Amino acid sequence: MPSHKISELDLIKRISKKVKVDASVVCGIGDDTAVLRATKDKYQLFTADMLIEDVDFTRRAHPEDIGHKALACSLSDIAAMGGMPCYALVSLGMPKKGSVRFIDGFYAGLLRLAKKFKVSVVGGDLSLSEKIVINISVIGEVRKEGVVFRSGAKPRDILFVSGPLGGSFYGRHLTFTPRIKEAHYLVNNYKVNAMLDISDGLSLDLRRLCLASQAGAVVYEDLIPVSADAKSFDEALHMGEDFELLFSMPLAEARRLIQEKGVYFKAIGEIREKHYGIKFITKKAQEKVLEAKGYQHF
Amino acid sequence: MPSHKISELDLIKRISKKVKVDASVVCGIGDDTAVLRATKDKYQLFTADMLIEDVDFTRRAHPEDIGHKALACSLSDIAAMGGMPCYALVSLGMPKKGSVRFIDGFYAGLLRLAKKFKVSVVGGDLSLSEKIVINISVIGEVRKEGVVFRSGAKPRDILFVSGPLGGSFYGRHLTFTPRIKEAHYLVNNYKVNAMLDISDGLSLDLRRLCLASQAGAVVYEDLIPVSADAKSFDEALHMGEDFELLFSMPLAEARRLIQEKGVYFKAIGEIREKHYGIKFITKKAQEKVLEAKGYQHF
Repeated sequence: MPSHKISELDLIKRISKKVKVDASVVCGIGDDTAVLRATKDKYQLFTADMLIEDVDFTRRAHPEDIGHKALACSLSDIAAMGGMPCYALVSLGMPKKGSVRFIDGFYAGLLRLAKKFKVSVVGGDLSLSEKIVINISVIGEVRKEGVVFRSGAKPRDILFVSGPLGGSFYGRHLTFTPRIKEAHYLVNNYKVNAMLDISDGLSLDLRRLCLASQAGAVVYEDLIPVSADAKSFDEALHMGEDFELLFSMPLAEARRLIQEKGVYFKAIGEIREKHYGIKFITKKAQEKVLEAKGYQHF
Repeated sequence: MPSHKISELDLIKRISKKVKVDASVVCGIGDDTAVLRATKDKYQLFTADMLIEDVDFTRRAHPEDIGHKALACSLSDIAAMGGMPCYALVSLGMPKKGSVRFIDGFYAGLLRLAKKFKVSVVGGDLSLSEKIVINISVIGEVRKEGVVFRSGAKPRDILFVSGPLGGSFYGRHLTFTPRIKEAHYLVNNYKVNAMLDISDGLSLDLRRLCLASQAGAVVYEDLIPVSADAKSFDEALHMGEDFELLFSMPLAEARRLIQEKGVYFKAIGEIREKHYGIKFITKKAQEKVLEAKGYQHF
């Protein structure tokens, strides 16, 4: 197949088929992080994110913000599994020119976030590269009863997001707070059936959750919270880099969560049977197919 | 300080000073891998390596070989601690054009090596990038009694290498076998005081071992095994990408190892007191300072 016609999802499927893992791997390719058997009570989580200049950030951004974002993306993946991060490795490729100033700023931003979430930076790699390239790998952990996969959504579950969506590209994508605390609170107090973080837009990530869960879904224009940064409702549906949690839970649990005070979780729709597809109800009560127009990395 | 005047070692020191780690970290920045407390008997190892097109390989190389090398570099780091690899994450940035063919070959080479050493590939990340960029993160494990740091060398230890050196850039760097089995054999049968893998040339990596151990060393031209690929003795000293183990052990252990049949470990010199420095004895019995001319990544 010519490579410009193959989607990121197809490529990942193609790779997954070739990969064999051993019995200690609870979940490999296909969720926000890998899930590995560790102790009697806990699983280990393992995730890596690569950020590339002019794709994930530009050199006009503050080095502090680039360092913050690089770690925050991986922590967001750990949050999406209901886990807590523990250790990080930082690989950095960059030009020699300006490297001292960049590295000082980059690590200041990264280490501030690491401290906030008690992550130990335990090593990494430094290479020459024309464009700045960053890879952060994180080991985390999760109680076995607390782990949440993207594949567990069930028809009649209520769908929630952890914050308003859209407009992140205008700046918020560099400074967002990964929803570690929110996820921790959720999995310790509620039965969450499925969860992921919205990195590539609600429409695309909802599709991923539905595909993994073999389910359909409906979301309501009236209910989807739109960020003050967004220039249109479409940005809340498709723009990406929101890094909010998207999760589903049974109706009784959802009722309890909605009544809770002092937390921001917004119900936006419902999980349906697979044959229903993924739909969107407009303010005028029109039912439309929700097309996945989110950001495709590849 | 202007960045062109700062060395890789200085930059890593600068970063290390800012990093705080918690009590579960036995060893953070500064060795071949991080060492983390895990179970009663074992430590966990955690390492990442970034490879960049036109620095670590060119696009003329077979995708199979690039995939092999990318994983082999990280496995070599695990070997250098005396450990066994368990899980890997693969981050890959590349142009869309030709991606299917490249990914098929890249994963074929990578997964062949993973299978050989029972490594489970459990996930990764796929991004667009003009140049090909790869980051492999590996989790490994090591028995607590078997772990070897680069900092444990003691005066009068004998220095060994696990294979002939030099000329790797002419091709071997793409196809080398990481010394997992050799390291495993060593730490299970001998008391090894210090070890690392020669990634940047014997002269530079011996300096790293001596700096970490607060020691000096002497090596002999007559003893250093030169690869058939090498065009000069200088290449065996300085060229890099040999990925052989460099290690030291007490004299009595060394005698035992030298008498052993069917293994390739070659004594090349001795650890000395720090004030002696790092010296090199020529075939004509001249004592020279061994300058670190190995490859500096940055």
